[in-house]
Amino acid sequence: MESQYKSSGNGGMEVGERERGVAVANKRNMRGCDVVLRFFALALTLTAAVVLGVDKETKTVPVTLVPTLPPVNVPLTSKWHYLSAFVFLVVANAIACGYAAISLLLTLANMNGKKGITMIIIFFDLVMVALLFSGVGAAAAIGIMGYQGNSHVRWNKVCNVFDKFCAQAAAAVAISGIAAAAFLLLVLLATFNLHKRH
Amino acid sequence: MESQYKSSGNGGMEVGERERGVAVANKRNMRGCDVVLRFFALALTLTAAVVLGVDKETKTVPVTLVPTLPPVNVPLTSKWHYLSAFVFLVVANAIACGYAAISLLLTLANMNGKKGITMIIIFFDLVMVALLFSGVGAAAAIGIMGYQGNSHVRWNKVCNVFDKFCAQAAAAVAISGIAAAAFLLLVLLATFNLHKRH
Repeated sequence: MESQYKSSGNGGMEVGERERGVAVANKRNMRGCDVVLRFFALALTLTAAVVLGVDKETKTVPVTLVPTLPPVNVPLTSKWHYLSAFVFLVVANAIACGYAAISLLLTLANMNGKKGITMIIIFFDLVMVALLFSGVGAAAAIGIMGYQGNSHVRWNKVCNVFDKFCAQAAAAVAISGIAAAAFLLLVLLATFNLHKRH
Repeated sequence: MESQYKSSGNGGMEVGERERGVAVANKRNMRGCDVVLRFFALALTLTAAVVLGVDKETKTVPVTLVPTLPPVNVPLTSKWHYLSAFVFLVVANAIACGYAAISLLLTLANMNGKKGITMIIIFFDLVMVALLFSGVGAAAAIGIMGYQGNSHVRWNKVCNVFDKFCAQAAAAVAISGIAAAAFLLLVLLATFNLHKRH
């Protein structure tokens, strides 16, 4: 009887330890994913802010001033801060980049997973999702208008002239979109983590 | 001794029951908030889709065809589907509205809080946050361009002519913004709920 009890007791402990070991390994994996994704989001938002923040192009365009004279070559410059949607996207990326850095440090410092800090991080991750997706939407809408124009409101396309400027803006929008998706994944991961621990 | 054990046993049970009672009441409150917010999001997205989806204005504008003749009055019409950003916002609102209805039914059916269904709902709530915020960003960017114009790209403002059209679009953008915030709150509420249960 004694040996039976002992063996069952040991078996129980072994199972318990194995489960605890798996849980710890899962938690470590989750934290690893979180740190990698957060670093990824930091790098992407920084890249997007820089790519759009240095976007500038000068082109010499022939303009006909008087119909009887040949056209005059006029240098025209396109800068990122001429369009408020692009300014919004640069600011959104800068805020998200700063927050990604702070939250990365917080996550690394919060290795024992304090509840309050976890909830604060989830809240701000969600705010970044909202901020970045609205910025991406705004800049993409203006970018598409620049590429295609619109005859109904008589807004002509400008990307046939400023092709490099538009390509750079499109790249920044795409990078910001991936960064926004990274923050969305971070929220999902944290929710999944909370869900598993429940 | 016996009476001591009994009284402490009863006390423990009472405390346990009270705690359970508070937990059940909290859970009911959370579920109530979730259902109300979801219904609110359904109503808002439906309103926004309808307000923008019926947006149309015809104005008679004097146009000078030949400088020596008086200007000719030409009727000009502005419709919501002329601008792709507005089409995107209407589609986003329609999708979010349909999803809000389905998720409302799912939430009401999932009264015992099954884990899988809860996670699926959180995931799609997050997708709606992304969809609606990008739609709001896109429509707001085009709307602001319509109100202010931009001299650098030579896109003239159109809202001085189509004032009613622009006001209706602005209302739809504002309503969509509140709906997006409602979905964000739903994700927060669900995360908070998972966190408390942990």
